[in-house]
Amino acid sequence: MIDAALRRLPHLELFRDGNAMVARTTLGRPERVVLAGHIDTVPIADNLPARLEGDLLYGCGGCDMKSGVAVQLRLAASLPEPRRDVTYVFYDGEEVEAERNGLLRLSRDSPELLDADLAVLLEPTSAIIEGGCQGTMRAEVRAAGKRAHSARSWNGINAIHQAGPILDVLRNYVARQPEVEGLRYHEGLNAVYIRGGVAGNVIPDECVVSVNHRFAPDRTVEQAQDYVREIFAGWDVTFTDWAAGARPGLTDPAAATLLAAVGGTPRAKFGWTDVARFSELGMPAVNYGPGDPEVAHSRAEHVPITQIAEVESRLRAWLTT
Amino acid sequence: MIDAALRRLPHLELFRDGNAMVARTTLGRPERVVLAGHIDTVPIADNLPARLEGDLLYGCGGCDMKSGVAVQLRLAASLPEPRRDVTYVFYDGEEVEAERNGLLRLSRDSPELLDADLAVLLEPTSAIIEGGCQGTMRAEVRAAGKRAHSARSWNGINAIHQAGPILDVLRNYVARQPEVEGLRYHEGLNAVYIRGGVAGNVIPDECVVSVNHRFAPDRTVEQAQDYVREIFAGWDVTFTDWAAGARPGLTDPAAATLLAAVGGTPRAKFGWTDVARFSELGMPAVNYGPGDPEVAHSRAEHVPITQIAEVESRLRAWLTT
Repeated sequence: MIDAALRRLPHLELFRDGNAMVARTTLGRPERVVLAGHIDTVPIADNLPARLEGDLLYGCGGCDMKSGVAVQLRLAASLPEPRRDVTYVFYDGEEVEAERNGLLRLSRDSPELLDADLAVLLEPTSAIIEGGCQGTMRAEVRAAGKRAHSARSWNGINAIHQAGPILDVLRNYVARQPEVEGLRYHEGLNAVYIRGGVAGNVIPDECVVSVNHRFAPDRTVEQAQDYVREIFAGWDVTFTDWAAGARPGLTDPAAATLLAAVGGTPRAKFGWTDVARFSELGMPAVNYGPGDPEVAHSRAEHVPITQIAEVESRLRAWLTT
Repeated sequence: MIDAALRRLPHLELFRDGNAMVARTTLGRPERVVLAGHIDTVPIADNLPARLEGDLLYGCGGCDMKSGVAVQLRLAASLPEPRRDVTYVFYDGEEVEAERNGLLRLSRDSPELLDADLAVLLEPTSAIIEGGCQGTMRAEVRAAGKRAHSARSWNGINAIHQAGPILDVLRNYVARQPEVEGLRYHEGLNAVYIRGGVAGNVIPDECVVSVNHRFAPDRTVEQAQDYVREIFAGWDVTFTDWAAGARPGLTDPAAATLLAAVGGTPRAKFGWTDVARFSELGMPAVNYGPGDPEVAHSRAEHVPITQIAEVESRLRAWLTT
């Protein structure tokens, strides 16, 4: 459907990569910007068909991020000659494991298609510019013990009890809240899983705490890993996945014009988003789209219609003036 | 095979209940004793066929408790007129879930078949009389929290972190070691499982610690539950299973004659055993058999031949003098 809609627009050059589409103007403008959005949603959760209640449009993916995609499509169709060249990116596989992410695939297969002075990701931000994003990583912190029959527990070492000091570290953690390029970030260090146990009558010899660390974009993945290794010094620490954050880049000229057009006070993005993929390609990137990210992925997912219109008109103003 | 061997012995009255066999002398002696053993083993673990290395007989179930059963069968065959009437109990289903235990079934279906002045369970004790047994119970201790996205963890309450104080209780626990009827017991309070976690990016709202409490036979199940509730006051505690211990009963006249015949210093049984089922029927019961309980259930399970012979000759002396 997106494919068919775009093919009707002679002012756009089209590229298809699997289920991702890239459509761009080629007006030779001095500046090029990306407007990007993912076209997949989380699974339906008794929230289709969509319904309108006053200003609120309820329905699966309405917030995350069909309404952002709708803004992209409307701008693509109605702006044959923007003042800035625009690359519209519609990609698949954002709501699944990272390896299937269409933007990642594009950035590997055809990075030149994504090249621009600034990328705007239309993920829900309640129509406020959110700069950059925090990085994220998961580490398994392992406590060891020695098995024994639980009737003679003094012959063993209980690894679950040994994990107590790991939880102490997490309980005593004080989050860094650094200011990066004018935005205040807020880090986090949390157990997201814990598992241990062999049988109901055995003193367990292993307990593993999976820790998720969210880190501000003033730290690289390596620096954040060093921090986690240091805070869990003395334990076996294994990093299972990680993704760098993205600096907000709001001081960049292209971002400054967007800020001026949108207005309001930009804020830091705490969650990791695909802006980090643009950041890896060396481009500044911001999040800006309709809808409250807190209701994304919920049964009651919804988006205020007025925010969709607002984001569209602000982006239109930016692209045409 | 046990069935066929017993049917050849005219001096024994036989009863069969499923895969359990009860064989008894009916000489009208003033005292009756039970010699009991289970006929199932844990699964084979590359440890068959059995092999002899010096004095050690290796093989699946050799220690737990084919050698005890061998002693029972030899005494049954060779003692047509013991000085005490003997009830030999061979039962199934000891190494599986409690509900399939043949001795439990017998104690419900035909408790009169088990009635005696003393029961000797020939479980491995390294040929030392072990009196009574400790009770055991499992409780789930639950820490609650509030879910949130882990990128904005301050909006939630991490239940895994909240479980830290549960582990503190376990780490600070000091075991009671009461003397009961002359034997020193040793209690235990241990986490045997821990689980918590929803997804890699979610602050979890529940963490459950499964705690195994082993308690000396001077406490009833109810008293031990009160203790666990008290030590985990403020948490949600659910008891998932429990089994009473058994007092050693060594001061009982029948046990005293056994002690005299066997010699040595009796000790407390820490693990829960089926002696508790006799205890529930109101009979004193002790553990006494060949083999080291520490090697039971292991690949390298073995039993010293000399211990088999020793247990047989001591029991023979007790039954005939």
